Amino acid sequence: MVETNVIENQTPSGGDPSVIGVVGLGLIGGSLARRLVARGRTVVAWNHRPHPYEQARRDGIVCKDSLAELVAAKPDVVVLCNPLKAMPTILAELKPLLDACPNATLTDVGSVKGMVREQVEAAGLGHRYVGAHPMAGNERSGWSAADPHLYDDALWAVTVDGHTAYERFLTVIRFVIDAVGNRAIVLDDDTHDRAAALISHMPHAVATALINELVDDPIRNIAAALAAGSWRDMTRVALTDPERTRAMIEEDAANVEILLRHMASRLNAVADRLHDSDASALTEFFAAGQPFRDYKAATNAQATTGEAHATNHANAAAAQPLTVPQDGWQRTLLESALRGEHIVAVTGDREMRVAVRSRV
Amino acid sequence: MVETNVIENQTPSGGDPSVIGVVGLGLIGGSLARRLVARGRTVVAWNHRPHPYEQARRDGIVCKDSLAELVAAKPDVVVLCNPLKAMPTILAELKPLLDACPNATLTDVGSVKGMVREQVEAAGLGHRYVGAHPMAGNERSGWSAADPHLYDDALWAVTVDGHTAYERFLTVIRFVIDAVGNRAIVLDDDTHDRAAALISHMPHAVATALINELVDDPIRNIAAALAAGSWRDMTRVALTDPERTRAMIEEDAANVEILLRHMASRLNAVADRLHDSDASALTEFFAAGQPFRDYKAATNAQATTGEAHATNHANAAAAQPLTVPQDGWQRTLLESALRGEHIVAVTGDREMRVAVRSRV
Repeated sequence: MVETNVIENQTPSGGDPSVIGVVGLGLIGGSLARRLVARGRTVVAWNHRPHPYEQARRDGIVCKDSLAELVAAKPDVVVLCNPLKAMPTILAELKPLLDACPNATLTDVGSVKGMVREQVEAAGLGHRYVGAHPMAGNERSGWSAADPHLYDDALWAVTVDGHTAYERFLTVIRFVIDAVGNRAIVLDDDTHDRAAALISHMPHAVATALINELVDDPIRNIAAALAAGSWRDMTRVALTDPERTRAMIEEDAANVEILLRHMASRLNAVADRLHDSDASALTEFFAAGQPFRDYKAATNAQATTGEAHATNHANAAAAQPLTVPQDGWQRTLLESALRGEHIVAVTGDREMRVAVRSRV
Repeated sequence: MVETNVIENQTPSGGDPSVIGVVGLGLIGGSLARRLVARGRTVVAWNHRPHPYEQARRDGIVCKDSLAELVAAKPDVVVLCNPLKAMPTILAELKPLLDACPNATLTDVGSVKGMVREQVEAAGLGHRYVGAHPMAGNERSGWSAADPHLYDDALWAVTVDGHTAYERFLTVIRFVIDAVGNRAIVLDDDTHDRAAALISHMPHAVATALINELVDDPIRNIAAALAAGSWRDMTRVALTDPERTRAMIEEDAANVEILLRHMASRLNAVADRLHDSDASALTEFFAAGQPFRDYKAATNAQATTGEAHATNHANAAAAQPLTVPQDGWQRTLLESALRGEHIVAVTGDREMRVAVRSRV
């Protein structure tokens, strides 16, 4: 099923990568491949097992029997959508193949960026690498769950460092904005991994601490019987595979450690205020989160009115020009992200358009 | 709409209270009143404003213009469904009225039990009071949201102390099991309020600390942009009215304080393990919650197969007899609750039937 009627079809422009290699046709890679085909790009794909190929070929994806055949198709971008644990093996196999294909830019979709860059550099592929992490996914997995709409209105974190070649970055940002039709923010690996620790990895540890507190309490059966919506929501992520959660937290250990100590100190401070019946300090504690409440209210309002969708297009009234300088371009782009801006269009090699939805 | 076709209609038996007074026709009181009428009971109701009366009368609820008229109808049980803040005023008005109606047993539906008992005792009504807290509710409020199905398969915490008269308790437990058609556990106020702190009040403070951590971080806009399902679920309760949350936590301050210190200590311990790269201690941390994961899996499986519903009936295969002794009956019932048992039937003055769904 090619969903040209729903996903806007665009003709590739000059700098817009038109041949994309997708390594791994699971939920993320399969959805991406189907979306790219629906938007008129050529997708060459390889999967470690060929079971999705029959359906994928019907969808217009060019399936290859080896990574060598995939690279032989001369992709502009190779997107690693394989599991993180397969990364070292796949990178080792790609290295000699890519050496014969100097134009191909390498990117990935992994949820931790510092570790992937280390692996890419260890494989000798750092000079052609730009990291990426699309904010897309659901509870399912595998090709059978692949859906091009998974990426509708998605935001990508694109990660660079001081050594990233600007033309490699430009290829990946055009891939995200023009080929996939999404938004992007540009970060260094540490900022990405610290933000991921804040909104996901650390909260997973907090959720687990909550269920451990219940399990250790002699009144656990009574507490479990009284539990309602707030408990259910706050412990949901503690119910998923604990081994996977542990691995995720260990991959981002330094950031999670710091944030857990911050949280412990915040909880002890609230306990002190309750102990002292310090009503005004308690009011302050509950008021401190107001900027995030306001941000959520604004975001939800935009989602309802469809205003959010508008910011995904180059001509949206909210979009502002951003010129990317030759020197310190990484810093300029990071500062834009810190201001809550998302890149919504690439209008020239050094000209982008950015839009703010709402700001915390 | 009288939903006799859905809510099982039962003829009141000897000890089953047949005339129920409901004070307050909001979401909780209105839903309760409609359910009781649908199950063949006589409901006399009073609301501080008469706007729900027209619809309530069509539903078969006998609406009264004053608390005096409500008490004059000689209810077996008066259920206080008014907001907690109105409690002292209503109790003061009820006191002389109930003095002329010695049989009426007083109960309530408040979410904190220690504070309500203190207010009831201060009003001189402690001798006829048994606390109650139905685990029912949703995001809405007011009569317009009232729905008898809100109580489908609900569990009530019924709270007693060393001075509670057994016959008062018996009236309330029969009200819950026979009149409303629900399940119950019997607790002391402190156990109830401690369990509520564990599964609701303390987690509300944790959710607020999470959004405060984000707001205080210079990368807050990046973190907010990357936030997905786990962050959304774990911070949902921090987005509700912070003044209401503060009041809720202050009403249960001593319990919340202790639990916040426990949580802080757990989070620091995880941070230490991450710092030391202590993989086996981390594995232990994630494994410790397994009894709760198993409990949830069992509970969800029962909900799917409809087995849970079966335990709501006296003759369910899973139900076991429980004899309530004259001396120390409170302790016997609390120990049953600690074992994860729910009272599903009252088969005699001292004979109940209890069932376990699953146990943490």
